[in-house]
Amino acid sequence: MRRWCRTGATLAFGAGLGAAVGRLLSLRGGEEEEDRAGLLSRVPVVPVPRVQASELTVSPGGSGTVMKYGFPSLANIKTRESYVTSYDPRTRTASWVIERLNPASLSGTSDRKYCDFKEDDSVHVFHRSTNADYRGSGFDRGHLAAAANHKWSQKAMEDTFYLSNVSPQNPHLNQNTWNNLEKLCRSLTKRYLNVYVCTGPLYLPRQEADGKLYVRYQVIGRNHVAVPTHFFKVLILEQVDGRGVELRSYVLPNEPIDEKVPLERFLVPIETIERASGLLFVPNIMKRNSSLQAITNK
Amino acid sequence: MRRWCRTGATLAFGAGLGAAVGRLLSLRGGEEEEDRAGLLSRVPVVPVPRVQASELTVSPGGSGTVMKYGFPSLANIKTRESYVTSYDPRTRTASWVIERLNPASLSGTSDRKYCDFKEDDSVHVFHRSTNADYRGSGFDRGHLAAAANHKWSQKAMEDTFYLSNVSPQNPHLNQNTWNNLEKLCRSLTKRYLNVYVCTGPLYLPRQEADGKLYVRYQVIGRNHVAVPTHFFKVLILEQVDGRGVELRSYVLPNEPIDEKVPLERFLVPIETIERASGLLFVPNIMKRNSSLQAITNK
Repeated sequence: MRRWCRTGATLAFGAGLGAAVGRLLSLRGGEEEEDRAGLLSRVPVVPVPRVQASELTVSPGGSGTVMKYGFPSLANIKTRESYVTSYDPRTRTASWVIERLNPASLSGTSDRKYCDFKEDDSVHVFHRSTNADYRGSGFDRGHLAAAANHKWSQKAMEDTFYLSNVSPQNPHLNQNTWNNLEKLCRSLTKRYLNVYVCTGPLYLPRQEADGKLYVRYQVIGRNHVAVPTHFFKVLILEQVDGRGVELRSYVLPNEPIDEKVPLERFLVPIETIERASGLLFVPNIMKRNSSLQAITNK
Repeated sequence: MRRWCRTGATLAFGAGLGAAVGRLLSLRGGEEEEDRAGLLSRVPVVPVPRVQASELTVSPGGSGTVMKYGFPSLANIKTRESYVTSYDPRTRTASWVIERLNPASLSGTSDRKYCDFKEDDSVHVFHRSTNADYRGSGFDRGHLAAAANHKWSQKAMEDTFYLSNVSPQNPHLNQNTWNNLEKLCRSLTKRYLNVYVCTGPLYLPRQEADGKLYVRYQVIGRNHVAVPTHFFKVLILEQVDGRGVELRSYVLPNEPIDEKVPLERFLVPIETIERASGLLFVPNIMKRNSSLQAITNK
């Protein structure tokens, strides 16, 4: 594992990651990096405050507990049984979804066979996706907060089937590499106290033949549901000894990925996601925890 | 003038309007239109409540007065000397900007020669546009709230030069037809008590060769500032006799437009903008005013 890298230029990138992310990074630099470097230079690594014993809980995560490390943005927040989400009415899908995983939240008898994808009627009908939008589109209804993360409660699992927690996702990706990433999140609960997972869509630019950068994404159905070009997952991993948190941030293209490509190849600096998504993670985490160990790649 | 049209199918469209808007409308229909029809059927046209005499003011619009007809969305609201805006950190430009025009706000000695475009340092550096992003891009820094609408105060005019009130705009459009639309807004202050103007970018889908719909827009500069495919202006026109408001909503493509094309050709039903932008106007106006006369075209 490698510690936080201060400049994008020094980062090695995964072969499986779309060219767009690399270009995104190559275009960064200068004062913004100094800004980030300044931020990091203010972060004490030791000594670190011990967390309160009362915080060392592994109870199933009700929605009140999942926002410990702050809100990546504050627009259209919706609180569900065990996740919290911010909805983007223009793209008809979430901007982000946050859930908290631990052994207790993963245990239970809830079964997805009793769950059906359903419209989110808290969203205005003009800005809501429907099952009909997905039908015949060639895309899966890809969960952002995964159903299997919420076995502790049938209601919690059912809540993951709101279409506001869903994005159009390439079926091969959904059923293979993305599924493996979700399994990795769950397996990390064996090594960490709590695993906070923030998932969302990205719409990344790429260079076209004219040399200019364009964001281009399909929209499906009568409601024009945006098909993300990529997805991100940001993992905030709480260490069992209370010595702080580690961060892992992944970006995967919304296309078939060979399962042989190791998931580590999709690790990116958190700044890549913060810039591309319009969200912020690190400033919020820093308010809560002065020790942050960012894992960018192995 | 024609009253509100209940179905997109019956609307005549301007020749100058991009095909995407027409397609956007043609894809609508069914239950959503019934929903809107239901809304309108609940709107009493007469009798209408008279507004309070205290509301019949034509003082320069401080930012406190401009939100009378509600917030189209609630994300990242910023209040300036005489406009209010919602910022989209992902596209690095506003989602919408609202200003109130009347003879008093248009009068004064403020001069734009003392104004310079400036970064909005209330926006995180990752999500902020800069003058350097526009340099050499081929796009103008197009005001959303127009400078000339705020002559009543030099500070108010200067505030329109924040780059968070700016979008990359085709220079020919900015200097011709868009300018004419801004002049029209100002001239309407002679016939209406107050002219509320909401302006913003749109990113409209269009059909590509494979028959599918795609949103595609350029991004410029190191900060990837989104170049909108279209712009909207929603005008809420307060009648001098206090008998309610009229609505005019325009969509213009972000490309050169022949000045001979009448501006009326770019009138669209407000629903077109509400669907495409993820914003809502009518429900907010209805809370405030039970008489709404929507002008879709002449």
